[in-house]
Amino acid sequence: MQKILSYIAVVDDALKKTTTTKDPAALYDPIIYTLNLGGKRIRPALLLLANDLFGGEDAAALNSALAIEVFHNFTLVHDDIMDEAPLRRGSQSVYKKWNTNVAILSGDVMLIQAIQLLSKDNETSLAEVLDVFNTTAVQVCEGQQFDMDFENSTTVSIDDYLKMIALKTAVLLGCSLKIGAIIGNASKEDANHIYEFGKNLGIAFQLMDDVLDLYGDPKKVGKRVGGDVITNKKTYLLLKAQELATGKTAKDLDFCLSSTVLDDASKVEKVKTIFNELNIKQLATQEMNLFYNTAISHLDSITASTEKKQVFENFAKSLMNREN
Amino acid sequence: MQKILSYIAVVDDALKKTTTTKDPAALYDPIIYTLNLGGKRIRPALLLLANDLFGGEDAAALNSALAIEVFHNFTLVHDDIMDEAPLRRGSQSVYKKWNTNVAILSGDVMLIQAIQLLSKDNETSLAEVLDVFNTTAVQVCEGQQFDMDFENSTTVSIDDYLKMIALKTAVLLGCSLKIGAIIGNASKEDANHIYEFGKNLGIAFQLMDDVLDLYGDPKKVGKRVGGDVITNKKTYLLLKAQELATGKTAKDLDFCLSSTVLDDASKVEKVKTIFNELNIKQLATQEMNLFYNTAISHLDSITASTEKKQVFENFAKSLMNREN
Repeated sequence: MQKILSYIAVVDDALKKTTTTKDPAALYDPIIYTLNLGGKRIRPALLLLANDLFGGEDAAALNSALAIEVFHNFTLVHDDIMDEAPLRRGSQSVYKKWNTNVAILSGDVMLIQAIQLLSKDNETSLAEVLDVFNTTAVQVCEGQQFDMDFENSTTVSIDDYLKMIALKTAVLLGCSLKIGAIIGNASKEDANHIYEFGKNLGIAFQLMDDVLDLYGDPKKVGKRVGGDVITNKKTYLLLKAQELATGKTAKDLDFCLSSTVLDDASKVEKVKTIFNELNIKQLATQEMNLFYNTAISHLDSITASTEKKQVFENFAKSLMNREN
Repeated sequence: MQKILSYIAVVDDALKKTTTTKDPAALYDPIIYTLNLGGKRIRPALLLLANDLFGGEDAAALNSALAIEVFHNFTLVHDDIMDEAPLRRGSQSVYKKWNTNVAILSGDVMLIQAIQLLSKDNETSLAEVLDVFNTTAVQVCEGQQFDMDFENSTTVSIDDYLKMIALKTAVLLGCSLKIGAIIGNASKEDANHIYEFGKNLGIAFQLMDDVLDLYGDPKKVGKRVGGDVITNKKTYLLLKAQELATGKTAKDLDFCLSSTVLDDASKVEKVKTIFNELNIKQLATQEMNLFYNTAISHLDSITASTEKKQVFENFAKSLMNREN
């Protein structure tokens, strides 16, 4: 983990240096604000780590790492408008602090800046890197659209849901790792393996999120337990329960979802009882383990030093053993 | 002009072929809708013409031409949200027909698609083409922000205005031509000359727009004469008048701008009288001719066949002799 932490510090430092204000301020101030809100910087750190795995120099991949972070933050700025999210990392979101127009246009510039940063490295592999990046960028937008569509849909299947979380969050992890691998001059096979490692790990991570929302230790989760249940969010847990529930159980579940008389605590309690009856936690954990194991088998298939690969496995384990 | 018209047809045809619907429909339908709303396709046609000027094959530049058109349409989709414009080319704008979220996300995908199209051509010159494109794309966003800032500013100078119209509209003309030149393997000097030709012509075109709004033949302008005056739009005409007016003239102009009792027709009449007194039409035309002549002198400096350059000059003349 030490290596990842040091890469996170490198990224944080480089981001600070690149964020200087320019005219028009209404366009550039929100970008600086967003990039200084913090964030785990996991994606750029993984890009640098993947580049290092295949023997690449850190300096050759730094701008691409920043590109991924700027792109990720672009998606947050635009998503916060669409999701009407007033807060981002404990501070006001851009559209709330300024306004929607500012958030749209600053976000647009961040997307272009991401491409500019990618174009700075990658003299020899620019077309290949851009191909991975552009494909992923479109997928992330598709994921956001599916997520919004699902809110008003009554026919979301488990497959739909898995596809949505893959597009919305997991492919960008895969993309970060693959771009690092390409810059590090990995073979085509290894670049694909590390992409699949990241994508499958990302899906497992999201399923873990769904489980922790209801089954996490309230002292450690850091947010209200059952928040997804209260808002009827179509998570893996709910969709699986709806798939399996029949007869009285299905009726009870429907009642919980549509009732206007149940208070939040009773709703969480009742839904949890139904989930437990249907063994949902175990089923979600099984599904998560499937994706996790697929991720690890792709990692195992990569031709690189066992010691360096161990860093990735330790990172993957730490994600799965988290309690928040 | 025949050559430009044939390129416009090529672009229109290629755009139709590339716009097939995909899932999620809420993301892709607005893109197809936008690209099929029409538009003059001047920018992609000029890109192909510039490529041809330096001996490039049409096929080598077609995807880049489409990229410019898709990018231009992305800016329209996002601008219409910001400007609250319900109509685009006589039809509902995307944010009005669907909603703001759809317009944001579909626009985002169009920006990424533009980069994807650029990356399809340009094996050898991708970094160079992207550099021109990205710089321009950021400038176009800056222009839109300055334009929005100006609405609430009381200190916009003529220089500010010229900079804004250069960024918001003219640089993309220059960029289209320069990318065509790069693909056609022009020298660095010629690529810069054709960029300056496009940029200066674009500024002249915009100034012409300002003049026609008030002084155009109402039968030919195709919209209400004096629309800019009625809305107090900070055009070259108004800014120049505010710069020059003193004493009673300045007071009269202020009255027209702030009066709530003047009806539209009287306001247009009164402001026009003030403009005439200050010789504004002639001053604007002089400024326009300065930019036009700069454009032509850059065209003259290009090393290429006189016959082919004549097509560009004829096109420039046709823009300046328009009455709407």
